[in-house]
Amino acid sequence: MATIEELQRKVQDLEAKLAAVQGNAGLGRQKIDVMSSEVVDSNPYSRLMALKRMGIVNNYEKIREMSVAVVGVGGVGSVTAEMLTRCGIGKLILFDYDKVELANMNRLFFQPHQAGLSKVDAAAATLQNINPDVAIDTYNYNITTVDNFQKFCDTISTGSLTGGPVDLVLSCVDNFEARMAINTACNELNQKWFESGVSENAVSGHIQFIVPGETACFACAPPLVVASKIDEKTLKREGVCAASLPTTMGIVAGFLVQNTLKYLLEFGTVSHYLGYSALTDFFPTMSLKPNPQCDDRECVRRQQEARRRPAVELATEVTEDAAPLHADNHWGISLVDENTPDDDDASNLKLVDGVQVAYSIPVDNSTPESSTGGAVAASELSLEELMQQMKSM
Amino acid sequence: MATIEELQRKVQDLEAKLAAVQGNAGLGRQKIDVMSSEVVDSNPYSRLMALKRMGIVNNYEKIREMSVAVVGVGGVGSVTAEMLTRCGIGKLILFDYDKVELANMNRLFFQPHQAGLSKVDAAAATLQNINPDVAIDTYNYNITTVDNFQKFCDTISTGSLTGGPVDLVLSCVDNFEARMAINTACNELNQKWFESGVSENAVSGHIQFIVPGETACFACAPPLVVASKIDEKTLKREGVCAASLPTTMGIVAGFLVQNTLKYLLEFGTVSHYLGYSALTDFFPTMSLKPNPQCDDRECVRRQQEARRRPAVELATEVTEDAAPLHADNHWGISLVDENTPDDDDASNLKLVDGVQVAYSIPVDNSTPESSTGGAVAASELSLEELMQQMKSM
Repeated sequence: MATIEELQRKVQDLEAKLAAVQGNAGLGRQKIDVMSSEVVDSNPYSRLMALKRMGIVNNYEKIREMSVAVVGVGGVGSVTAEMLTRCGIGKLILFDYDKVELANMNRLFFQPHQAGLSKVDAAAATLQNINPDVAIDTYNYNITTVDNFQKFCDTISTGSLTGGPVDLVLSCVDNFEARMAINTACNELNQKWFESGVSENAVSGHIQFIVPGETACFACAPPLVVASKIDEKTLKREGVCAASLPTTMGIVAGFLVQNTLKYLLEFGTVSHYLGYSALTDFFPTMSLKPNPQCDDRECVRRQQEARRRPAVELATEVTEDAAPLHADNHWGISLVDENTPDDDDASNLKLVDGVQVAYSIPVDNSTPESSTGGAVAASELSLEELMQQMKSM
Repeated sequence: MATIEELQRKVQDLEAKLAAVQGNAGLGRQKIDVMSSEVVDSNPYSRLMALKRMGIVNNYEKIREMSVAVVGVGGVGSVTAEMLTRCGIGKLILFDYDKVELANMNRLFFQPHQAGLSKVDAAAATLQNINPDVAIDTYNYNITTVDNFQKFCDTISTGSLTGGPVDLVLSCVDNFEARMAINTACNELNQKWFESGVSENAVSGHIQFIVPGETACFACAPPLVVASKIDEKTLKREGVCAASLPTTMGIVAGFLVQNTLKYLLEFGTVSHYLGYSALTDFFPTMSLKPNPQCDDRECVRRQQEARRRPAVELATEVTEDAAPLHADNHWGISLVDENTPDDDDASNLKLVDGVQVAYSIPVDNSTPESSTGGAVAASELSLEELMQQMKSM
C-alpha cells in the first residue's frame, strides 16, 4: 500500500508528464492581480520588479497596461511573443496563418507534438500557460488580402486594453509583401512599429524602429533581396529552402523585445537600426531619415506633419561635418555593410560566398536643401568612420 | 489534506489522461538515424542542412558527433541547452543542483507546471521531447564540493560519445565560486570552454572563450563584483534579489551557442570576448592574453606549453603600436567599459546609477619583456581607440 507522500509524488510526476505532452493546457499557475516586488520563490515577477530597485526602470508595473501586436509567429515572432509574455505585457495580439511543422523544430518555442496545429493557436496555448495574466488575442489570417488588411488595420487601431491603438506593432514576417502591408497600415494609422528580419543564410539579421514621418519607412527606398541565385518567391517552394538557426533568430527576437521594453518603459536608448552579423560578431547601428520622395503618400504626409512639429523626441544631433554621405548617389540608396569589418571598401560591398544582404538601407540625400529637417544621419557617418578605423588596423 | 483514496483516484485519472494523450498520433517525433537535407515539412533538419547549400558550413552533420557540457541550467544555460538540442548536437551533459521556481518564469524555457522539479530533470524531459536524437546526461549536484569536483572532472574528460573529453564546456553559472571551479578543472584538463555572465541589473552580459594557455583564464585577474551596495553573497538571501530579463539572457545564450557552432563546425570567426550593453546596444569585443603571473599554476603551465608550440590557431596580430595599455597599472587590471560610449573617461569608469560591472577584464602588461608571447591585445587597444572616436562625436 502506497503512503500519502508516495501518492503525492506520483500525482506530481504524472501532472508534469501530462503537461509536457499536452502542451500544458490547464496546469501551471493562477492569475496574479497586482505585480509584487516581494522576493519569494513563488513570485514570477520578483526578478522583473527588481529592475526598479536596480535603478533601471522607474515603473515596471506599467507594462501591464501596454499592448503589442506581433505579426508573424515564426522563428522570431514566437520567441518575441514568449519574451513579452514572460515580461508580463498587458496584451498580446498575434497574427499568422501558417501551421506548425517539424521543419520548424530547428528554432526555439514550438515543440514536435504541436505539428499540424495553427501557429497562433499553438502559441496562445503555450503562452497562456506560461503567464495567465497576459490577455492574448489571435488572428489566423493572411494580412495581405484586401479584406484582411482592413481587419488588420481595425485591430491595430482598437486593440489596446482600453480600446485605443496598440502601443507598438512588431513585424516578424518573412516576406516583402507582408512587410509592405504592415508599412502601409502603420503609415496610414500613424502607428510606431519595429521591422525585423533574418537573412536566408541564417547568419545575419536586423531590427529597425519606424516612427512614421520621423524615421525612414519600409518604402522609403526600394528594398532589395540580393540573394545568391535565390529569388524570394521561390523560397517556400520547389525544394529550395532558406537556412535558419535558433541562435540568430533568438538574438534578433532578443534585440526586438529589449528595444520594445526600452521604448515602452522609457529607459536606455532605443536603437533606430541594429544589425547583427554572426560570422564576425559585428553590430552596425545607424539612424535613418525618411525619404521626401517616398512612394508611400502617407509617409510623405507624416513627414510634413513631423516638420510642422517642434522636433524633440527623435531628433539626431547635427555633426560638424554635415556633408551628405553619398552626394553622387542618384537613388539615395546605400547598402548596410553586413560584411566583415576588414573589407577593402564599404561602398563597394563585397560579400563572402553565400552571404547576402536582405534589404537596402535608405540614406538621406536631401540634407543640402533642407533647412528644418537639417539633421544628418550622424551615427551613420560615424559608423563609416568607425569602420575605416577598424579597416586600418 | 487529501485522503489516500482521493489521491489514488487522482493517480488513476491522470494515468488515464496520459494514456489517452500518448496514444495520440501527434505526440512528439520518432528518432532519425541520418540527418537529411530533404526539403519536406516533416524534416526537422532541413533548415540546418541548408547551411551547407548556402555556403556557410561545409559539414553540418558533423554536429552529431559533438558533445558539449552545460554547467548551470538557469536563465542562460537552459536556453543554451535548448538551442544546441534544436541544432541536433550529438550529446549534451547538464549540471545543476537547483529546483525550478515560479520566480524563474521571467526567463525563457521552464514553465510553471515544472516548479519544484530539479532543473536538470525538467530540462532533460523537455529537451528529449524536442529532439529525441540528442543523448542527454544529467548531474544533479554542486560541482564546487571536493567530491563532486572530482566527479565533474571525470565526466568532462570522458563525456564524449566515444568516451574521450567533451568538445566544449559552457559555463552558465551565476556565481564566482562555480566559475572558479570550472576554470580550475579546465586548466587542469586542458579543456577549452566558454564563460558567460549577465549583470545583476539585467542590462548587460558577456561571453568569453578560454583556451588554456592561449587566452586569459578566469583567474588571470581577480574578478570583481562592483555592485551598487550589493554583495554577491547576499544575492540569493535575505530578500535581496538580482534583476533578470528574458531578452538579455536569451541574447547571451544566443551569442554563446552561435560562437559554439562557429568553433565546432569551423565557420566564421570565434569571438574571444563579446559584451552586450542593452541600454545603448553596445557590443565590445577584445582579445585577452593570459597573465604570466596567474594564481592558477595549471594556467601558467599551459602558457609555457603554448609558448613551446608554434603559434597558429589563436595568435593575435602584433600592431605597430605595441606599447602596453596601462604601463602604470600595478595590478594589470582594466575594467571592461560596459557603460554608454559617451562617458568622459574610460579608465575612470563612471557608471549610471544602479549599473555595475560584474568582472574585471585582465590586460596583458607583460609585453615589454616578453619576446615569444609578444602579441599585444590588438583589438583591445582598438576598442579603446574606437571608444575615443565615439566619445568625440
